[in-house]
Amino acid sequence: MPMNRRRFLAAGMGVGLLTHREHHVNADENVDRIDPTKLTKSNVPTPALLLDLDLFEANVKTMAEHCQRAGRGFRPHAKTHKCPEIAKQQMKAGALGISVATVPEAEAMVAAGITGVLLTSPIVEPAKIARMVALIQHGGQVMLSVGHPRQIELLAEAAGAAEVNVDVLVDVDIGDRRTGILPGQPAVELAQLIAKQKRLRIRGVQSYAGLASHVVGFEARDKVSREVMAKSVETRELLSKAGFDASILSGGSTGTYNIDSKIRGVTELQVGSYVFMDLDYRRNGGKTSGENYSDFHHSLTVLATVVNATHADRVSVDAGTKALDTTTTYKPEAKSWPGLTYNRGGDEFGILTVEPGEKLPRIGDRLEFIVPHCDPTTNLYDRIYATRGEKVEAVWPIAARRERVAGL
Amino acid sequence: MPMNRRRFLAAGMGVGLLTHREHHVNADENVDRIDPTKLTKSNVPTPALLLDLDLFEANVKTMAEHCQRAGRGFRPHAKTHKCPEIAKQQMKAGALGISVATVPEAEAMVAAGITGVLLTSPIVEPAKIARMVALIQHGGQVMLSVGHPRQIELLAEAAGAAEVNVDVLVDVDIGDRRTGILPGQPAVELAQLIAKQKRLRIRGVQSYAGLASHVVGFEARDKVSREVMAKSVETRELLSKAGFDASILSGGSTGTYNIDSKIRGVTELQVGSYVFMDLDYRRNGGKTSGENYSDFHHSLTVLATVVNATHADRVSVDAGTKALDTTTTYKPEAKSWPGLTYNRGGDEFGILTVEPGEKLPRIGDRLEFIVPHCDPTTNLYDRIYATRGEKVEAVWPIAARRERVAGL
Repeated sequence: MPMNRRRFLAAGMGVGLLTHREHHVNADENVDRIDPTKLTKSNVPTPALLLDLDLFEANVKTMAEHCQRAGRGFRPHAKTHKCPEIAKQQMKAGALGISVATVPEAEAMVAAGITGVLLTSPIVEPAKIARMVALIQHGGQVMLSVGHPRQIELLAEAAGAAEVNVDVLVDVDIGDRRTGILPGQPAVELAQLIAKQKRLRIRGVQSYAGLASHVVGFEARDKVSREVMAKSVETRELLSKAGFDASILSGGSTGTYNIDSKIRGVTELQVGSYVFMDLDYRRNGGKTSGENYSDFHHSLTVLATVVNATHADRVSVDAGTKALDTTTTYKPEAKSWPGLTYNRGGDEFGILTVEPGEKLPRIGDRLEFIVPHCDPTTNLYDRIYATRGEKVEAVWPIAARRERVAGL
Repeated sequence: MPMNRRRFLAAGMGVGLLTHREHHVNADENVDRIDPTKLTKSNVPTPALLLDLDLFEANVKTMAEHCQRAGRGFRPHAKTHKCPEIAKQQMKAGALGISVATVPEAEAMVAAGITGVLLTSPIVEPAKIARMVALIQHGGQVMLSVGHPRQIELLAEAAGAAEVNVDVLVDVDIGDRRTGILPGQPAVELAQLIAKQKRLRIRGVQSYAGLASHVVGFEARDKVSREVMAKSVETRELLSKAGFDASILSGGSTGTYNIDSKIRGVTELQVGSYVFMDLDYRRNGGKTSGENYSDFHHSLTVLATVVNATHADRVSVDAGTKALDTTTTYKPEAKSWPGLTYNRGGDEFGILTVEPGEKLPRIGDRLEFIVPHCDPTTNLYDRIYATRGEKVEAVWPIAARRERVAGL
C-alpha cells in the first residue's frame, strides 16, 4: 500500500513535502524569475502561448505607420493581449494610449506606467467604479465610456467623494446592440446629463461595430463600416454643436483600420487583434490581398506536444478546450505541417488527422498552431513566451488576465 | 489635453503612479488577503465563479456514500476544479486520492498535502516527467498513467537518475481513441516493457470512456459503459494472469458512477464533475430521475452584472466567452429567472432576452448562471467564491490552473 498515510509520515516524508510546498509558493507567482536564456521552443512546457517577435514587431510597425500616414491617432485595445509589455511597445510606436475592456486591465496598464487608458466597456458595480476613480486619485490617466444614465450617477458620486475629475466618452451603439446609448438625440441627452455633474468631463464619443469588423470581403466591409460609423460621426457633430468637448471619436478595429481611418471625423482607432492576427480575421479578405487578409502576420501560436500515437490514423496533442479557444468555426491551423487537421478532443486534448497516406506527427513532436480567435485564447494563459527564431527572448506576464482586487 | 505626458509629470503625478504600482504588485498575487467577511453575492467583482457550499457539500457526501455502499474506492478528478481546498474536502469524505490531468495540477495537489495523486494524462516532455519524479523525490505520493513505449523509456530514465521508484497504471484505450494503449495483448506487451524497468512498478489499469459518460438516457448509457469497460476489466485480468500487480482498475465518470461501480473488477472511480454539475451532464438523464440527471446539484454558477439596458428587447451582462465556456451546445441558464435566454455576445458580453412581454433584468442587476460545461469554465478563473446563502464564506484559489514552472 504505497498510498498509506501512516507509512508516508513514518518515512519522514512530511518534512520533505513541506519544504517542497515552500519551494512552490516561492516559485509560483513570479513569472519574472523564469530565466528565458534557458528556454527554447523545444523545452517550454506545453501547451504554451508563443509570440514570434519578428512578426509581432512588424505588425506594430505596420499599424503605427498606417495611422501616421492617415493622420489619425490609435489607442490599441489590450483586451486582445492583456499584457503590459505589449502595450509598452504599442506606446513606443506612437499610440495615444491603450484601450481596455475591464477594470483589471485598466489597473494592470496604469501599474505598468501606461498613460491614456480608455475603458471601453460599461461598468455599473460601485466597487469597480471606485477602483477606476482610485486610479485617477493615484495619478493614473484613465477615461471611461458611459452609455446609460445609471453609470453617470454612480460615477459622479464616486468622483465627488474622491474629489477628482473624470474624463468620459459617450459610448454610442451604432448597431451591435450590446453597449452604448443610441446615436443622435439620445446620445446628446446623455451628454446633457453628464454635463450636469461637475466632476465629469465629456471628451467625445466612442463606437465599436463588431458587425462591420468581421464582414467578409473588403468592399462589403467598407460599405458596412462607412454606413454605421456615419452615425457616430453625426453624433460627434451634434455634441460639438451643443457645445460639448467632442475632440475624440474612437472607433474602428483590425478589420476596418484602413476603412475607418479614411472616414472624416474618426480621430483614433481602437485596433486590437492586429498585433497577433487569427484565423477569424484572416478569412475577412484584404484590400489588396484577396481572399486572405494578410496585412498583418500571424505572430501568435499555441505550442502543443504529441502525447499519444496509438492509432495509425491520428495522434493526440496536449491542447484542448482549456488551451485553445474553439468557439469560432475555424479550426486551429498547424504551422509548417500542411494537410494536418486539428479536431476537438475535449478539454485536455486535440486530435490530429491527415488525409490517407499523408505523414502524421510522431509522439513527442511539438507543433505550433495558429489560433482561431486570439483574444479568448490569450485569456487562457498567464504568460507569453516571446520568441526570436527558436529562442525564447522574454517571458511576458499576461498580467491583466487576473482580477486583482485584494478587498472591497 | 489631459493625456499629455508633460502635464502629467509636471503635476508630480509620476510619483503617485509609482506608489500605486507598488501597491498593486503587493496586492496582486495573494488571493488569501481577500477578507471574505466583507464579501457577499452583492459585492464580489463580476464576472465571478461562485460555489454554493450547501449544494457542494451534499454532492461530496452523496458520491462518498454511494462508493462506500458499492464497496468501491474513488479518486475524484481535479481537472474539474483545479482547487486544493475542494480536493481536501473530497479526501476528508474518504477519497483514496485525487486524479489530475496535468503536471501543474499534480504539483498543486501535492503542495496542499494531498496523497494518492494519479496523473491520468500521458506526458512525454522530459522536463515534465522530471517534475513528476521530483514530486516523488520530495515525498509526494503520485502515480502516472502510461500508454506508449516512449513514455516508459523517458520515465525509466528520469526515475533511474533520481533513484526513486515510480508507480504506474497502464492507460487502456477502450474507445475514445485519444490516450492509452489498446486493450488485451497490446496492453500486456506494454506491461512487459514496464516490468523490464527496475524503477517502475505496475499497479494496475486505468480507462476513461468519454464515449460512455455522455450517452443520453440511463439504460443506453448503462449498456455502452458495460460494453467498453469490459475491455478494461479483461485487460486487468490478463495482467494479473501474467503475474503483474493489477490491484487498481480506475475508471468511470460522473455520468457512469452508478454503472461502473457495479461492474466487477472496477476498483475505483475517477469522478469529476459531480462536485459542480453542469448542463451538459444534466441532459444525460438519471437512473431514477428521468430526463434530467439530478443525482447531484448545480453548485457552480457564474455571477454576472447587467451593464447595458439600452434596448427594450435585451440587456447585456459582463460575462462572455472569456467568462463562460460556451463550446457545448447548451446555453448558460439563469438561476431564479425562468424564461430568460443567454445568447453569446462576444468575448466580453452575454445578451439576455426574454419572450415578448416577459420581464427583463434591469441595469445593475446581478444574475447567477448555471454553466454549460464546468471544467473549462473553472479554468477561466483564478479563485472561487464559496458561498453560504448570500454570504461569501471563503475564497479558494484555483491554484492548479497555472503553469508553475520557474525554470527548466
